[in-house]
Amino acid sequence: MSVYHVSFKIQSDRRPTFHDVTDQVQEALKKSGIKDGILVVFSQHTTCSVMIQEASDDINYWGTELLMQDLVSVLENIIPTCRTEGQYLHPGPKHIEAAAGRNELPAWSLNTDAHLRSILMGRSESIPVVDGKLELGEFGRIYFADFDQVRARERTIRVQIVGE
Amino acid sequence: MSVYHVSFKIQSDRRPTFHDVTDQVQEALKKSGIKDGILVVFSQHTTCSVMIQEASDDINYWGTELLMQDLVSVLENIIPTCRTEGQYLHPGPKHIEAAAGRNELPAWSLNTDAHLRSILMGRSESIPVVDGKLELGEFGRIYFADFDQVRARERTIRVQIVGE
Amino acid sequence: MSVYHVSFKIQSDRRPTFHDVTDQVQEALKKSGIKDGILVVFSQHTTCSVMIQEASDDINYWGTELLMQDLVSVLENIIPTCRTEGQYLHPGPKHIEAAAGRNELPAWSLNTDAHLRSILMGRSESIPVVDGKLELGEFGRIYFADFDQVRARERTIRVQIVGE
Repeated sequence: MSVYHVSFKIQSDRRPTFHDVTDQVQEALKKSGIKDGILVVFSQHTTCSVMIQEASDDINYWGTELLMQDLVSVLENIIPTCRTEGQYLHPGPKHIEAAAGRNELPAWSLNTDAHLRSILMGRSESIPVVDGKLELGEFGRIYFADFDQVRARERTIRVQIVGE
Repeated sequence: MSVYHVSFKIQSDRRPTFHDVTDQVQEALKKSGIKDGILVVFSQHTTCSVMIQEASDDINYWGTELLMQDLVSVLENIIPTCRTEGQYLHPGPKHIEAAAGRNELPAWSLNTDAHLRSILMGRSESIPVVDGKLELGEFGRIYFADFDQVRARERTIRVQIVGE
Repeated sequence: MSVYHVSFKIQSDRRPTFHDVTDQVQEALKKSGIKDGILVVFSQHTTCSVMIQEASDDINYWGTELLMQDLVSVLENIIPTCRTEGQYLHPGPKHIEAAAGRNELPAWSLNTDAHLRSILMGRSESIPVVDGKLELGEFGRIYFADFDQVRARERTIRVQIVGE
């Protein structure tokens, strides 16, 4: 029985971005040598999520797969993009003060929508590893979503595998 | 420390279906012999989900438990059933072409709502196993949900247990 | 390789409550002695959830962090608070009868909103443990949410760690 951990990075944009990280995760599994167990794909960022979905084949002018753009439309309806302070309760004055102490612009905290979307979509996916194979089914792909629209950033994805 | 895997199948219908699979999962745990660890109930289908909830006792004329029918109403409000191409961006022309290459009718791809509902509800549940017991609490039951309304299909549920 | 389990309790109120349980989880990890593996924070209650988010710093008059209060607003829009029987399909007559058999008042079953919110938000979070550290990132905190508004109750949170 062993534990294998690896992390890798992607670069997000100032719009909701969705990176297909399936190949990186498959490579991590191969390197681990683990044949049977549980693999967790995890985002430590509080405005990001990990999800499993089918590749949509078609993309829009921004390069976003159409199914993911449909997801953005659904999320926009229930958690509208935060355009100014006062639209949501968060961020409040103490939060802005704390951010200033980290040399962050107040506008960088106007990502309340991204925090809420991230809570709704969840932080990770746990996937069975059986006979050395990730059980994603015929169409399953692993996506890393960054919902933060106020800053383009480098983001970390973690893969943790426990098994034998 | 050991890893145990088993899968089983259910038959879905051309409406959102919810199968209580608690008994099959409990049986898998018993067969595994694992007393302490983590059990993952996983759906590899991109229009399906796994969820834990209380049994609702009452059912409607379709045989759906009332709490799950309430869930369908909530989902219908935020992600309406896809009734024709053009309602959502997905499926686009490349996706339809790829589906045709697998001898799938174009209408079978009009399950965008099911893909989106599946993303929202998540792919799996991870449950602690303590002293040979699945820690579901007094009322927790495990449901497999198939949100796909365009085809009745046989579906696979996977159970993966890591522990000792 | 070993498995460590611990549970602890919090007291909820007759409104959606959010408890930051990060310190208790960190303490569990330290006691476990596990350096690398997967840690699951799990709620066995069908009207509760576990989520990871940034601390909001500011709180409202009720003591609820502003980001969590924003979440309540989002949930209220898509799954309104259940105020009377008939608003949702659940609870039906058999459910009320079963509850009466457990000496529960009928009004205690008017928590359909909490069940649905709990399904949507999920039951658990799985977090990588790397070099003895919980990989929550710079801002990640672990919250236990109780969405049940009909009764203040003592609730159980379970922490399960598998690793070495």
